[in-house]
Amino acid sequence: MAHEHTAEGTDPDPGTLDAHREQVVTDAVVASFTTAKDERLREVMQALVRHTHAFIREVRLSEDEWNQAIAFLTAVGHTTTDTRQEFVLLSDVLGISMLTVAVNDATAAPGVIKATEATVFGPFFVENSPRIEPGGDIAHGATGEPSLISGTVSDTAGNLIAGARIEVWEADSDGMYDVQYDNDRLTGRAHLYSDADGRYQFWGLTPTPYPIPDDGPVGQLLDAAGRSPMRASHLHFMVTAPGFRRLVTHIFVAGDAYLGTDSVFGVKESLIYDFERHEPGTPTPDGRVIPGTWTSTVFDIVLSAEEHSP
Amino acid sequence: MAHEHTAEGTDPDPGTLDAHREQVVTDAVVASFTTAKDERLREVMQALVRHTHAFIREVRLSEDEWNQAIAFLTAVGHTTTDTRQEFVLLSDVLGISMLTVAVNDATAAPGVIKATEATVFGPFFVENSPRIEPGGDIAHGATGEPSLISGTVSDTAGNLIAGARIEVWEADSDGMYDVQYDNDRLTGRAHLYSDADGRYQFWGLTPTPYPIPDDGPVGQLLDAAGRSPMRASHLHFMVTAPGFRRLVTHIFVAGDAYLGTDSVFGVKESLIYDFERHEPGTPTPDGRVIPGTWTSTVFDIVLSAEEHSP
Repeated sequence: MAHEHTAEGTDPDPGTLDAHREQVVTDAVVASFTTAKDERLREVMQALVRHTHAFIREVRLSEDEWNQAIAFLTAVGHTTTDTRQEFVLLSDVLGISMLTVAVNDATAAPGVIKATEATVFGPFFVENSPRIEPGGDIAHGATGEPSLISGTVSDTAGNLIAGARIEVWEADSDGMYDVQYDNDRLTGRAHLYSDADGRYQFWGLTPTPYPIPDDGPVGQLLDAAGRSPMRASHLHFMVTAPGFRRLVTHIFVAGDAYLGTDSVFGVKESLIYDFERHEPGTPTPDGRVIPGTWTSTVFDIVLSAEEHSP
Repeated sequence: MAHEHTAEGTDPDPGTLDAHREQVVTDAVVASFTTAKDERLREVMQALVRHTHAFIREVRLSEDEWNQAIAFLTAVGHTTTDTRQEFVLLSDVLGISMLTVAVNDATAAPGVIKATEATVFGPFFVENSPRIEPGGDIAHGATGEPSLISGTVSDTAGNLIAGARIEVWEADSDGMYDVQYDNDRLTGRAHLYSDADGRYQFWGLTPTPYPIPDDGPVGQLLDAAGRSPMRASHLHFMVTAPGFRRLVTHIFVAGDAYLGTDSVFGVKESLIYDFERHEPGTPTPDGRVIPGTWTSTVFDIVLSAEEHSP
């Protein structure tokens, strides 16, 4: 049964035979998913097969490289624990996380105020953050320069939203989130609610740059690629209100050195804010006395309406 | 700095804005790999980014689905141990292994005898198999119906090759390779050499179908896809000789129930062979007396010349 390709008379071009033989493999794998019980699973898996196969065909992946890929994924799997998610890091540094955000963040209809843009969620959110009152402080002992963040929450028509839940979290001035320390501290994170006029205000820390965890296989990949593990300075927000889409975003600091090379591609121009620095002794709007410098910024949040099934 | 997309006058189409915003992410990630020290790493990673991003854009991957993908890969990573390679299984059931084989198995030039086709290596090869003499038995206690396999080793011009090393390995009639048992048995595998006339002959077992390990996340994927974990009955070969490309292949059994649905897409028409069954008591060519039935097949192996750098 051998030699089925060696037709009598005209011999086909070997390159054409290669392409045909490769397409036969792809077609068989795509067909194998037609029996999926779930229609969406079928659609996603068939597309995954087509695109991964197109990648292998384009780069003519060698068997050595396939072995390296298996070893790399194995190392990513073995680096991942309950407190370290190396697959999320991998998705982040390949821009897969940010593209997924983009795909799910439909641009508002033209002519109305555009909703605040989303960015990556990151691995450092935790449930059950402490609640603070309006004007309260999220630091709870996290070190860094105090920063007063305030603004409004509104819809895309400009109507202010009272009672929106605002979760905020950030790294300290050593570039560490509370969950990266060995003890059970709960610092540099909190939630509060917009007031009856749709306003909010809290004290946090002026964001500072930090590297994503780079002592694992993803760090090795970044090193081989000549890429920095540094994230641009940012403060995380998650804002929810009944009838509105959940907003997951950051604000970035204008002038930050890493805005152009953020290791997870999270920066958007519309999310860069001026953090105005005030001299030591400058009175704060709420009457605090701060021995050193402090900063302030205004971040007006615009939520888009929840989508309803027709 | 917000609202940068809300131009005065003509409002762009929201779909166009979405496509632009998504392309910006992909372009930034592709650009981030231009600094790779190794040219091939740059090429492979940039292609990987383009193809994975095209997948996400095509299926409009939801954030829930992204979370499911992270959880699935985490489970694959945690199922992988020193003796269980779930990433290889995943590559196998997505046809990635077989496509990599196809990409590296260039079709011989037209007009000459086509070299024996390659197929997947699989996870069950081990180094240091026992050596058997020509006509010897690889079973060493593995259970199953005896099968006499013989043939020649030649080049694509028809010249016979003496002294080719032939590694063979297969599952027993319970569908288990030796390495899947808890003890240190070394059964159902051996190596031998082609003789001065380029001929070989050995006793093995008539191949039987078996499932790939399906008690992990890859098994769950196959179940959700309505796919069988069964592999078509086969016997593994790895053939090497100086000056020739290493051949890794199987022979499959004509009439086997799983030829059309092999779970790793390893079947090629040219690799299907008739295993002729002989009645109990039929004398064997080498004078053995076998109480039950036995089978025989002839597999002539054709090696392609090693590629040399110009």
